[in-house]
Amino acid sequence: MAGVAEPRPLGLEEERCNMAIRSPDEFRESLRDNRRVFMNGELVEDVTTHPILKVNTETAAGDFLLTHSEDPAVRDLFVASHPETGEPISRYFLPPHTSEDLEKRLEMIGQSIRLTGGLPFGKDVGTDAMYAIMTTAQRMGKPEYLERAQSYLEHLRKNDLNLCGAITDVKGDRGKPPAQQTHPDYYLHIVDQNKDGIVVRGAKIHITAAPAANDILVLPTRQMRENESEYSVAFAIPANAKGITMVCRPSRGERSPSEFPAGLPVRGLVEAMIIFDDVLVPWERVFMCGEWQFSMLLAYTFATYHRFTAVSYKIPIVELLAGCAVAMAEMNGVERVGHIRAKLVEIAAYVETLKALATAAIKSPVMHGDLAVPNLLITNMGKLHFASHYHEIIKLVQDIAGGIISTMPTYKDWQNEELHKPLEHYLGGSSKYTTEERLRMIALTHRMVASAESAHMEVVTVHGEGSMEAQRMMISVESPFKEYRNLALTAAGVPPRG
Amino acid sequence: MAGVAEPRPLGLEEERCNMAIRSPDEFRESLRDNRRVFMNGELVEDVTTHPILKVNTETAAGDFLLTHSEDPAVRDLFVASHPETGEPISRYFLPPHTSEDLEKRLEMIGQSIRLTGGLPFGKDVGTDAMYAIMTTAQRMGKPEYLERAQSYLEHLRKNDLNLCGAITDVKGDRGKPPAQQTHPDYYLHIVDQNKDGIVVRGAKIHITAAPAANDILVLPTRQMRENESEYSVAFAIPANAKGITMVCRPSRGERSPSEFPAGLPVRGLVEAMIIFDDVLVPWERVFMCGEWQFSMLLAYTFATYHRFTAVSYKIPIVELLAGCAVAMAEMNGVERVGHIRAKLVEIAAYVETLKALATAAIKSPVMHGDLAVPNLLITNMGKLHFASHYHEIIKLVQDIAGGIISTMPTYKDWQNEELHKPLEHYLGGSSKYTTEERLRMIALTHRMVASAESAHMEVVTVHGEGSMEAQRMMISVESPFKEYRNLALTAAGVPPRG
Amino acid sequence: MAGVAEPRPLGLEEERCNMAIRSPDEFRESLRDNRRVFMNGELVEDVTTHPILKVNTETAAGDFLLTHSEDPAVRDLFVASHPETGEPISRYFLPPHTSEDLEKRLEMIGQSIRLTGGLPFGKDVGTDAMYAIMTTAQRMGKPEYLERAQSYLEHLRKNDLNLCGAITDVKGDRGKPPAQQTHPDYYLHIVDQNKDGIVVRGAKIHITAAPAANDILVLPTRQMRENESEYSVAFAIPANAKGITMVCRPSRGERSPSEFPAGLPVRGLVEAMIIFDDVLVPWERVFMCGEWQFSMLLAYTFATYHRFTAVSYKIPIVELLAGCAVAMAEMNGVERVGHIRAKLVEIAAYVETLKALATAAIKSPVMHGDLAVPNLLITNMGKLHFASHYHEIIKLVQDIAGGIISTMPTYKDWQNEELHKPLEHYLGGSSKYTTEERLRMIALTHRMVASAESAHMEVVTVHGEGSMEAQRMMISVESPFKEYRNLALTAAGVPPRG
Amino acid sequence: MAGVAEPRPLGLEEERCNMAIRSPDEFRESLRDNRRVFMNGELVEDVTTHPILKVNTETAAGDFLLTHSEDPAVRDLFVASHPETGEPISRYFLPPHTSEDLEKRLEMIGQSIRLTGGLPFGKDVGTDAMYAIMTTAQRMGKPEYLERAQSYLEHLRKNDLNLCGAITDVKGDRGKPPAQQTHPDYYLHIVDQNKDGIVVRGAKIHITAAPAANDILVLPTRQMRENESEYSVAFAIPANAKGITMVCRPSRGERSPSEFPAGLPVRGLVEAMIIFDDVLVPWERVFMCGEWQFSMLLAYTFATYHRFTAVSYKIPIVELLAGCAVAMAEMNGVERVGHIRAKLVEIAAYVETLKALATAAIKSPVMHGDLAVPNLLITNMGKLHFASHYHEIIKLVQDIAGGIISTMPTYKDWQNEELHKPLEHYLGGSSKYTTEERLRMIALTHRMVASAESAHMEVVTVHGEGSMEAQRMMISVESPFKEYRNLALTAAGVPPRG
Repeated sequence: MAGVAEPRPLGLEEERCNMAIRSPDEFRESLRDNRRVFMNGELVEDVTTHPILKVNTETAAGDFLLTHSEDPAVRDLFVASHPETGEPISRYFLPPHTSEDLEKRLEMIGQSIRLTGGLPFGKDVGTDAMYAIMTTAQRMGKPEYLERAQSYLEHLRKNDLNLCGAITDVKGDRGKPPAQQTHPDYYLHIVDQNKDGIVVRGAKIHITAAPAANDILVLPTRQMRENESEYSVAFAIPANAKGITMVCRPSRGERSPSEFPAGLPVRGLVEAMIIFDDVLVPWERVFMCGEWQFSMLLAYTFATYHRFTAVSYKIPIVELLAGCAVAMAEMNGVERVGHIRAKLVEIAAYVETLKALATAAIKSPVMHGDLAVPNLLITNMGKLHFASHYHEIIKLVQDIAGGIISTMPTYKDWQNEELHKPLEHYLGGSSKYTTEERLRMIALTHRMVASAESAHMEVVTVHGEGSMEAQRMMISVESPFKEYRNLALTAAGVPPRG
Repeated sequence: MAGVAEPRPLGLEEERCNMAIRSPDEFRESLRDNRRVFMNGELVEDVTTHPILKVNTETAAGDFLLTHSEDPAVRDLFVASHPETGEPISRYFLPPHTSEDLEKRLEMIGQSIRLTGGLPFGKDVGTDAMYAIMTTAQRMGKPEYLERAQSYLEHLRKNDLNLCGAITDVKGDRGKPPAQQTHPDYYLHIVDQNKDGIVVRGAKIHITAAPAANDILVLPTRQMRENESEYSVAFAIPANAKGITMVCRPSRGERSPSEFPAGLPVRGLVEAMIIFDDVLVPWERVFMCGEWQFSMLLAYTFATYHRFTAVSYKIPIVELLAGCAVAMAEMNGVERVGHIRAKLVEIAAYVETLKALATAAIKSPVMHGDLAVPNLLITNMGKLHFASHYHEIIKLVQDIAGGIISTMPTYKDWQNEELHKPLEHYLGGSSKYTTEERLRMIALTHRMVASAESAHMEVVTVHGEGSMEAQRMMISVESPFKEYRNLALTAAGVPPRG
Repeated sequence: MAGVAEPRPLGLEEERCNMAIRSPDEFRESLRDNRRVFMNGELVEDVTTHPILKVNTETAAGDFLLTHSEDPAVRDLFVASHPETGEPISRYFLPPHTSEDLEKRLEMIGQSIRLTGGLPFGKDVGTDAMYAIMTTAQRMGKPEYLERAQSYLEHLRKNDLNLCGAITDVKGDRGKPPAQQTHPDYYLHIVDQNKDGIVVRGAKIHITAAPAANDILVLPTRQMRENESEYSVAFAIPANAKGITMVCRPSRGERSPSEFPAGLPVRGLVEAMIIFDDVLVPWERVFMCGEWQFSMLLAYTFATYHRFTAVSYKIPIVELLAGCAVAMAEMNGVERVGHIRAKLVEIAAYVETLKALATAAIKSPVMHGDLAVPNLLITNMGKLHFASHYHEIIKLVQDIAGGIISTMPTYKDWQNEELHKPLEHYLGGSSKYTTEERLRMIALTHRMVASAESAHMEVVTVHGEGSMEAQRMMISVESPFKEYRNLALTAAGVPPRG
Repeated sequence: MAGVAEPRPLGLEEERCNMAIRSPDEFRESLRDNRRVFMNGELVEDVTTHPILKVNTETAAGDFLLTHSEDPAVRDLFVASHPETGEPISRYFLPPHTSEDLEKRLEMIGQSIRLTGGLPFGKDVGTDAMYAIMTTAQRMGKPEYLERAQSYLEHLRKNDLNLCGAITDVKGDRGKPPAQQTHPDYYLHIVDQNKDGIVVRGAKIHITAAPAANDILVLPTRQMRENESEYSVAFAIPANAKGITMVCRPSRGERSPSEFPAGLPVRGLVEAMIIFDDVLVPWERVFMCGEWQFSMLLAYTFATYHRFTAVSYKIPIVELLAGCAVAMAEMNGVERVGHIRAKLVEIAAYVETLKALATAAIKSPVMHGDLAVPNLLITNMGKLHFASHYHEIIKLVQDIAGGIISTMPTYKDWQNEELHKPLEHYLGGSSKYTTEERLRMIALTHRMVASAESAHMEVVTVHGEGSMEAQRMMISVESPFKEYRNLALTAAGVPPRG
């Protein structure tokens, strides 16, 4: 790819065949492309070296580490063969056709976190969007959409691109639909179109990991109505395209000298607002352009795929939360106390119910043509399960771990010559662990349940992949209420009706 | 079977080959066997005609209706081929070897209720016990146990017997183990043994549907310790064996003239206390005799099979509950009101989570030899799920349905000439239904959530198949706490340990 | 009062002065007045002797027992001095002017239940309505209403009348207001008026204890709108007035021989539907006649007084529930087990929070003129507290008590010669109590949490005094949302606005 | 006070009379006393100027601002007259004798936060300890303890000292009592005593605001047993006494340029671990020295006073939380949406129940001699109420506010010339507020529910003033279980027993 500072050309011909599995360095290099990224009021020169954005980049780079893993089992999980050419491609770029394919996605996401220490968010959300686009394209009755989608998938495979999904509009007054707002830009919309493509304007928020994406996939945030066709738009666009600006929320950078060392590097994702200032999208990357009737199918199918992704990435996170609780109970010497045991059981039931719901969602997928969508009802229940009980679980972990997760001395105190000895003397717990081991576990638990990161994770849990009301709405739509009712009418001796 | 008033002989030779699938009448006839059954202080002459016990008998007889169904799909579900002889036998008597076999059991139990209006409790609980016995027998290292179990299974197949499971001891002071009670009989135990068999004494309570069982399967109620070998006993015995007395709790009888008619007959099961007054059990029916080391395996495996049965029979019940809520919301004209909608979604999520957990339990069974046991952890979570939220769901249904489910006039009021017209005038709801249709649905909902039966069902939900603490204990044992902990230790940079 | 079979005259002059505190027999006698009461399709001849209605009558008669108590402390609580004449009157007929007066009402209701075994529902709900009428009359700007109310209060005092409150209309399609229903009678309304009074038609449901009321107080069930003035009507009427019919739901009668004896007589209230078939109400008993603007004040003030009454009567009931849990834990020998202890603490916190909310509601009343209304916000929170957690508490009591509360043998079994000895042998628990004591406690607990009565009480808890949504609506209206918001705006540096 | 660098003399004679109400500057000056305070491994030179500790100091200084308020109503609340001399003293130093006195404490704490923006933690916790000491001293039968306590109270009054309460020991292996730990120092204990006083060793953790205290009050963390008399010790000691070291957890400092401005200054408290390295405590400041029999009374009475303080300071905090929810709902334009309204009602009920419990605790105090202790049972229920539901409320506020509280741009972005206009364009909400107003409210809400501070507050809510199990234990002790039980036994016809 010549000239990283130039917007990447969309044409596919000249691309190198052996790019299909990029190395982490190739990935990092690809992000030095003149993208316009701000943080804290300043334009970021290089998202791979910026003290905060570097963490985001390296977290995303985890995916490229896995496809180059020396462990064949790992490589086999993350690398698949192109269905036609047989060339190695990222498994994310294989559309799911069966329960087994969905199970692989679940496993990939779980293992990504377990092996790299954080979620390399990108191809997962990107293909959630991509397969929703393909599902919808099959139904729209315009062959060009399906062709474009397939051609774009080929582009992704060949260039091994990292993605982000830009869904949530800024929305303005949420009590009003797009067309009744004080200005028309609160939802991203088409402001012009010409022979080259469409021109779009608007802003998308909560775009996780956006500064590490090569391409941005844009979808409507919700079902659109008849008079909202200008808002019914879906497309892909390189992150460095003209008119695109990202404003990133600062998050934590590398581990500071005050923090206790840990077994895994710092991982974390940045949230961005992406402003589209009259951006030209070439026709070959436009997947919906006014077909409001299909906006619901697109939004719902994306939501389902993406909530399944959310269930997948939450599993290792809540397993780790459970682990903090168990380890802290042991280190405090209370792992056999009745009420502690009861709390550990509650945490385990939370974790294992989530895993069971994932299993059940996989085992009864909905087929759209040859695309397997995880069971809509169960997937939404899975997301609602983890979101609605998450704070309670955080409370239990805080309760078991003890106040020290929020009052502990820093690693600098620990290293201070005068303080080291008394701290070692006084901050011990169960004799099965050293004081330093206990402090390291306290530090991890602090991060998981008592830090800026944990507070952010609470919000992500509530709002990520749609708020709980969004899941309730889909449960309302998908539940067999009429079947329930007819059972009852029949039992009561009342003839069922429509 | 000559002389129904005589205890049934255990020998298999003289039994009729074509008995394998008994008719409902053959089943009813088999219960007229001089069994000693009391209700309300009086000896019951015939459990098939007694005004209350008749309902219990007919509910159990539902199973025999299904195996004789004229619908081939139903018959195929409930009738299987003997694995060796190919003769038709009840499918309950086929031990589960695969996920598919477990799924069949789920389906049989669900369909039993949907088709007959109530649970024909008997072969399900009986084979839960039987397969736990077989699982344990495989491990005990004494070939005679496995032979006896297989021979008894053959006996069940050939005679198409209905069963009950007698597990729960009366327990006395629950703060004390069997051997420290004020008398030794609070847990059923062996008081003697001779060449013919063992002699047992004790009492089992909460034995559902016992008066409709041909044979009783007796298992220890929990893990026994070293000094409790006399309490480590399992066996089968005909319900009319000498020394056996059943004391039954009265429950409702046939529909009274005050009750509105319904679409299904009255169904319900009776709870019995079974007293074993020095009962002789022939050796060929003894499946555990002192091997306390295996009491835990036996108790846990039975508990798991049986909680899976519980999940199976709860599904149609809670679907019907959900149906009452939907129908009442419609009939009251409030099905679109926001808070009603939210409550319906909560009910649906409860029902569908139960179904999803059943699916997940089936999909990841534990194999004991060639016997498939539903996943222990998920099955226990399924039982805990329905039991711990059941009262909340009852509250929601009561809330949606309105106070009238508890204050409605009777069918006799409805039929009274003077009252009929004003009742019809005043008790209408949504115009989609007639007043009588609404009253029939109110009557059904009354039965489901506001009656003696519904209160009993609450208690059954809490205590049936073991209380919630019993499930929590198994979740505590089965959850991967060490794996969780090691994940956390590793992330914290602390070496995992044993 | 000559001629009980005649409608009671409204004139006050000829009434005997010493009637002010009636005896239980005078009360019973007063109900033999040709009232038209149906149960199970049959006209009831005498509500004081009918096998089921007798229980309702005797429960109501409890109030008259208390005013004649030989214990001066009890008499002093229930009997007060007429504020002008000094004559003894029921304390219920003294309007509350202070926190202390409200505290007295709380105490009266609590002690009624503790001393008589059941709630003598009547004067409490009646004066809840009466003081709401007086509060509203003060605001309506028509002196005749206040005069009528005061005159009627004097009538109540002099005749020591028992009352019921008829509030809830049948409502038809709840999605539609009164005027849009398929007929105009789904809400009680004025169909005519003349020099003698108004003529009303409609039906009220869920009227607790109605067959034991001398007079019926009728209020609108909710706020009425401008076009609903015919529905904005409040009045008092004797229960035997022409055109009034009560249809009563059968409930339990006297203790049957199957039931274990108890320490207190059977108490219980009947629910009635009252049909008003063009009933003439004399002007002197009309308290609202079309003034829809005041319907909200009337409905809300009644709701608050009445929910405070509900909190008052729930306290002894939930104390008794808690007592069943404690006693059963002791009798089962598990009162020191960790999870049992935790459940008992949860039950106690439920009970004591209810009591604390009652205290707080009393301590910060709202004054309407010289009438003290319990704090609206806290009273509604109190009702919501007990209703929203009640089923959870029932579950805990069921859990602690054990399945035997639903499977126990009957008193007839216990008395059977053959069964008595084995039952005594096998059904013992902790040696601190005899088997019979344990069985009596099991029987009480059965009644409280596992019977037709307990299921009915669940529904009453949800719907009595308005459903939980009604409380949430009042909490929404009464909470200081604007104050909260202004605190936050100020803290954020944003000027508060209207 | 000459020589702030020297430990402050304990003698009272030479102290200035007009010191009784110190100015904020006098308070700040008093903290420059050579106290040994560490943060992040470095010795802090001056806790009034250190970038982080300054916030802690200024938060504590709020109390001195209030006693010097120009608003007479504020001054009257915070300043009282010395009961004997009539001199002005801090009202905290007046022991509560009545409900009204307790109400004043509630009001003082609430107003402190509302007026200064944060809790000036110090005299509240200090006098919680002081009045627990006095309560215990009255019972111990050794007049010197009461004299010392009174003399020390006089000292506090005359010098207007700020305090901290050092209660929680480091505890080591929590499964073991003090005497069985791997070393004896896991609980603070007496290592020597001589004519001057006692010598103590140990470490106390979670000591809120300690670096801003003049004196430290040390109490046992729990009931001590017979063999734990060396651990049964209570005393006061100046914070700069020889042998005392504080290790402080870094918390946030002043508002950074990235943060949006707010209406109130940054407030916050630091948590410290205090190490006592063989500290000499003069006899006149020793309030318990081995009397283990009274350790429970001391610990429980302190816990009750302090949990009442906690209830008091939580009220304005949760009101502010509620305000964020209301304001964000308005700003997002969703304040009338059904599910949002339901969530606001849930939040309001949480807040108002807390206030009602505080009212009830005040209205039924327990008298220890002439000291009024807030009702133990209700106070503990109040603490448990706010702690057990807090995370749920945080979830609701996060849910209502939207994901933007965690992804919003910084103030520096807002001030950036290129970004300002698009941010203003895109981040507007309801037209009732400007975009900047909305962003300020989002920033406040971020701080309250999505920041390091909010995560810390969750932990404080769980563990501050004792964990929820501690409250459950006291509810278990204080609830009238026997009265409940006797009610039930009586109703069942079983004689109550001991």
